[in-house]
Amino acid sequence: MGNPIAAMLVIGDEILSGRTRDANMHHLAGELGSAGIDLNEVRIVADDRAAIIQAARSLSAAFDHLFTSGGIGPTHDDITADCIAEAFGAPIDVRDDARAILEAHYEAQKTTLNDARLRMARIPDGATLIDNPISAAPGFTLGNVHVLAGVPSVFQAMVASVLPTLTGGQPISSSSLRIERAEGEIAGPLAEIAEQYDQLSFGSYPFHQNGIYGTNIVVRGSDSSAVKMAILVLQEAFLDATA
Amino acid sequence: MGNPIAAMLVIGDEILSGRTRDANMHHLAGELGSAGIDLNEVRIVADDRAAIIQAARSLSAAFDHLFTSGGIGPTHDDITADCIAEAFGAPIDVRDDARAILEAHYEAQKTTLNDARLRMARIPDGATLIDNPISAAPGFTLGNVHVLAGVPSVFQAMVASVLPTLTGGQPISSSSLRIERAEGEIAGPLAEIAEQYDQLSFGSYPFHQNGIYGTNIVVRGSDSSAVKMAILVLQEAFLDATA
Repeated sequence: MGNPIAAMLVIGDEILSGRTRDANMHHLAGELGSAGIDLNEVRIVADDRAAIIQAARSLSAAFDHLFTSGGIGPTHDDITADCIAEAFGAPIDVRDDARAILEAHYEAQKTTLNDARLRMARIPDGATLIDNPISAAPGFTLGNVHVLAGVPSVFQAMVASVLPTLTGGQPISSSSLRIERAEGEIAGPLAEIAEQYDQLSFGSYPFHQNGIYGTNIVVRGSDSSAVKMAILVLQEAFLDATA
Repeated sequence: MGNPIAAMLVIGDEILSGRTRDANMHHLAGELGSAGIDLNEVRIVADDRAAIIQAARSLSAAFDHLFTSGGIGPTHDDITADCIAEAFGAPIDVRDDARAILEAHYEAQKTTLNDARLRMARIPDGATLIDNPISAAPGFTLGNVHVLAGVPSVFQAMVASVLPTLTGGQPISSSSLRIERAEGEIAGPLAEIAEQYDQLSFGSYPFHQNGIYGTNIVVRGSDSSAVKMAILVLQEAFLDATA
């Protein structure tokens, strides 16, 4: 009985062009880990209908949950909601519940709910709204697809809104050990230890710092006492004894 | 005649777990843009054979080039070279040319080329080696798949080694305009301008800074004079006249 598995789909011309670095992936990865949901794949595609629709279908089918990020604002390049509707054959139009949220928000701000902003009330039939306490325009969940904003503060607020509604598994424990020896020196014994603890994952990440070639070993798994035990075994194997 | 299109496959448990942020994607995106190769998709998968093989096949078939990052070191979790060989039906074993590079490197360092390190000389038949001036162990190109290291300094050096061997197109020009008006205010006229310049891409990125709701518009395309003209038209439309 493993944890639920998830994928993320980032709709992001600005990341593919090298203009910005993604921040949402890093945030979601951490939050899902705490919730006991394993993030197993991320895809980043351009603001392109065919690419979004194909990726959404394929990831929704392959994973328990799919989280999308980006493309639900008021401008011409915000096409995610319509693509998700098309991907799953759901009709989409301005929905009364979403429109009411936007009306109240812009009225309070003494701003006009114009046609562009009203596009943010386009929600597929059958979707559940995801609360956006930052800028009102909601995200939505359709089937196992959670459609979230791209602006990091709004993305994070929406993750906080939707995660408690999902059933997670065991939170993943993680612990790491810094070893001041090169990867190639420790690889043999490390592989043997990793084989003994086959319910855990052992990542090996070389570093080169201040003239030292070293390795960070990261042990992860849902059994936190096994993680602790494996770290002790690694210490025993690779660190010099200290008093 | 568009530019060649590329995808990137990041083999990265450590990114999916939220432990580290990817840096290689950002670097490759910028370098490919300068070389006139469009990065159209990125996938991040776990250190999992089936996931790597499936993604490599699918991205290699769909794009002109596929760049992979990570998983070619000496430890048990370094499985990328074997997966790429399997994905494309190429036999793989320790290759003499790669072994000679490692032997020279470790001899100069007065370090042993042990079994773990020798794994880094496993190169598929028919692949061309990619030079690694940082830590010797080579990457390789098999068909349209370029297999690079995950450590950022080595990844960058390998990108510098392999990019000049590829035929690029027109470098992408990019220019941006900061508008201190909310996305919802400018969305209508922006869409009209974007339609007029349909050979360019117009990205719209809202920001909220020091109490100002504003929008960064990024215009991209291979025709740099069209990009400049579009920025002038946007300025005309959205910025107050200044003397």
